[in-house]
Amino acid sequence: MYDELKRRVCDINRALKSEGLVSQTWGNASAVDRQAGVIGIKPSGVAYELLQPEHITLVDFQGNVVEGALKPSVDVATHLVLFRAFPDIGGVIHTHSHYATCFAQARRDLPCLGTTHADYFYGAVPLATPPSREQARQGYESFTGERIVNLFEARDPLLTPAALVAGHGPFVWGESIEKALENALVLEALARMALHTLMLNPAANALEDYLLDTHFFRKHGGDAYYGQS
Amino acid sequence: MYDELKRRVCDINRALKSEGLVSQTWGNASAVDRQAGVIGIKPSGVAYELLQPEHITLVDFQGNVVEGALKPSVDVATHLVLFRAFPDIGGVIHTHSHYATCFAQARRDLPCLGTTHADYFYGAVPLATPPSREQARQGYESFTGERIVNLFEARDPLLTPAALVAGHGPFVWGESIEKALENALVLEALARMALHTLMLNPAANALEDYLLDTHFFRKHGGDAYYGQS
Amino acid sequence: MYDELKRRVCDINRALKSEGLVSQTWGNASAVDRQAGVIGIKPSGVAYELLQPEHITLVDFQGNVVEGALKPSVDVATHLVLFRAFPDIGGVIHTHSHYATCFAQARRDLPCLGTTHADYFYGAVPLATPPSREQARQGYESFTGERIVNLFEARDPLLTPAALVAGHGPFVWGESIEKALENALVLEALARMALHTLMLNPAANALEDYLLDTHFFRKHGGDAYYGQS
Amino acid sequence: MYDELKRRVCDINRALKSEGLVSQTWGNASAVDRQAGVIGIKPSGVAYELLQPEHITLVDFQGNVVEGALKPSVDVATHLVLFRAFPDIGGVIHTHSHYATCFAQARRDLPCLGTTHADYFYGAVPLATPPSREQARQGYESFTGERIVNLFEARDPLLTPAALVAGHGPFVWGESIEKALENALVLEALARMALHTLMLNPAANALEDYLLDTHFFRKHGGDAYYGQS
Repeated sequence: MYDELKRRVCDINRALKSEGLVSQTWGNASAVDRQAGVIGIKPSGVAYELLQPEHITLVDFQGNVVEGALKPSVDVATHLVLFRAFPDIGGVIHTHSHYATCFAQARRDLPCLGTTHADYFYGAVPLATPPSREQARQGYESFTGERIVNLFEARDPLLTPAALVAGHGPFVWGESIEKALENALVLEALARMALHTLMLNPAANALEDYLLDTHFFRKHGGDAYYGQS
Repeated sequence: MYDELKRRVCDINRALKSEGLVSQTWGNASAVDRQAGVIGIKPSGVAYELLQPEHITLVDFQGNVVEGALKPSVDVATHLVLFRAFPDIGGVIHTHSHYATCFAQARRDLPCLGTTHADYFYGAVPLATPPSREQARQGYESFTGERIVNLFEARDPLLTPAALVAGHGPFVWGESIEKALENALVLEALARMALHTLMLNPAANALEDYLLDTHFFRKHGGDAYYGQS
Repeated sequence: MYDELKRRVCDINRALKSEGLVSQTWGNASAVDRQAGVIGIKPSGVAYELLQPEHITLVDFQGNVVEGALKPSVDVATHLVLFRAFPDIGGVIHTHSHYATCFAQARRDLPCLGTTHADYFYGAVPLATPPSREQARQGYESFTGERIVNLFEARDPLLTPAALVAGHGPFVWGESIEKALENALVLEALARMALHTLMLNPAANALEDYLLDTHFFRKHGGDAYYGQS
Repeated sequence: MYDELKRRVCDINRALKSEGLVSQTWGNASAVDRQAGVIGIKPSGVAYELLQPEHITLVDFQGNVVEGALKPSVDVATHLVLFRAFPDIGGVIHTHSHYATCFAQARRDLPCLGTTHADYFYGAVPLATPPSREQARQGYESFTGERIVNLFEARDPLLTPAALVAGHGPFVWGESIEKALENALVLEALARMALHTLMLNPAANALEDYLLDTHFFRKHGGDAYYGQS
């Protein structure tokens, strides 16, 4: 019944490894079927290379297992918070991809230093503070999600589809799980670019606002003129 | 009729990806047939791996489509400005190659720090300022080209066949599109070398002028003695 | 009689090269059979690609060769000191893996800067001072081991299964030689992450203690909930 | 008659590319047959992938072509100066390998920061000043060699078989061309390690003299105990 959902979640989780975003088992991807109220997510601690569609765990929006013999990722509660708070997103990806994680560990947001960034993210990728000691005890993973959601109270999560959690790593999303993967790959490339840019110029300024607009809206929205049709 | 031109443009665009100069769809290459007054360029937003010679869009010097079902790269206007201003160049390449883009984002020119650079570029690769707010509104891509051309008013564009656009990335050219690819690959290697050199010595000096001359003219011009004949 | 031990030691030594932890012949792995009182270790100076199980040298806890035609690694005495001092470890790996060695050369311990680290090592990976001039003359390799052991007088070597020796490189261990390899790979990834984090923020703080606890004990000990039980 | 010499020179030149020490045509290797008074060297500007033994140019110690249809490397005069000045070396390699060239461009010697270095080079790899303006005019390549030779007036060139030329790159040698390749690969790995070590600790000290001795003479000279026999 959810074969297509499980196949897509499996494919993107395997791609996390083959595309170089994860080492060991450091990452997980999920997709939602909003009509059915079902989320497919990677099972915890399973090697990407061995992952098959039938291993994908299905849960509802409260985290109850709907289908699947394996426990979902320990980070499932973070994914669920994001799916509940951001009604237009279709997929969520969490990794410890190298350069994005370095910004998270350095507790810096990822500034928009050029047009490469502006083509994908409308301004800086923000930094969330980690859960407090009390929150970590009550529900570490769900409060991680809450901290991210707080950043987007006055901001469209699809214009800047990622956040860094301080001391931890990136969470990325998109209209679909496939788009979330693209965003995660681009985020990692941008973080690498920003690191080396800041080494050449520690005081590098953010891209001018009008250039950010030019590039972002050349690719997004009703006036976009990038690509075919 | 333009089969050979389209094949060459296709080959070099595919090489941008296979040689590691571009991720996603972040780059485009073009070549000119000056006798015919025709430029072949990558179509916008098409994956390099799928690109075939019949996909290459042909335009005239004013940007009118001469042949091809697909829209040309959004950067076509920049390419055209360069082809019009630099009468001896045969190919133009724009990428967001990692290290060259970092210099552009840091808003630094690429200094000539050693003989590797001197073998290919006669002095620093200059930095262009981006179009102004007003220019970005009137024609972002063509004014990007104008900014580059301004740098070469008193400079031979074939002695230093590249420029960095601040906050954006490199534009590279050459006598042919094949030579432009070589220059783009070398520029990226030089930018990586310059970054790590500046980390070891932030005050690293430019190569002595007489060594620049020795190396550049060992490979270029009438007294060159590098290579066979 | 020790066929299985020799096969495992051979496999992991070959993996040091294929997984990118060693260049040239810069590393060695060993495993212990505590019931038999026998340690299997790489022979000195043999290329990993040519290594076969029958090449593995077997020694007792005093370093006497029990079986094998080839001399053991010059570092065998360091391995033996660790096996004698840490009764719960099953394998030891020494490499000059790039980033971990850079921390050793910089004479810095590897701080716990994020949850990636906290998932594997319970706090900073400590730095051992090298043997003194006198110790280097008396027994360089065994005193290297003693310096490491000194770091763990009040610390469980399986909670932080690695140490850096100043000016030299990492030594890593685990319940088994296979787990030691995983720890060595993770240590190298963490050192790379820490380097780039410190470049972005030279004053980056260690992860909060309660987050270290949350992550470490999510994967280790009786309350762990990571993976498929 | 010199088939074996030409085959070896061809193999090592091809390895410069396949092992990642050169991009484009930025490097050349040579070997000497001292009894015959003949040096085999890469021809100028030929792609490594196409190089065959019959392309290798043979010259005498004065640089006269003894055999071969192709012009020798433009750097042949540097090689000859080294072969004449260092009677025990059998091969010379020049590259623009990335990290070693960065030290040359930063005009820093390569300090001995750890045991990895001490296993191969007995102390810092020294930095040569480039030829003067006048020398560059009279014979750029031979004076480059003279500058290197000057560094070894009171130093054994086989204990530290490499030098960096300021603003240019590394020259490496060895008892044989095969050993020169190993030294060139190790030099590049050491330069990468030193760069990242200096980023973690700009004031990193050289390895203690007694540890340098312990490691170097564990692998070299009459008291060596590394390897088999």
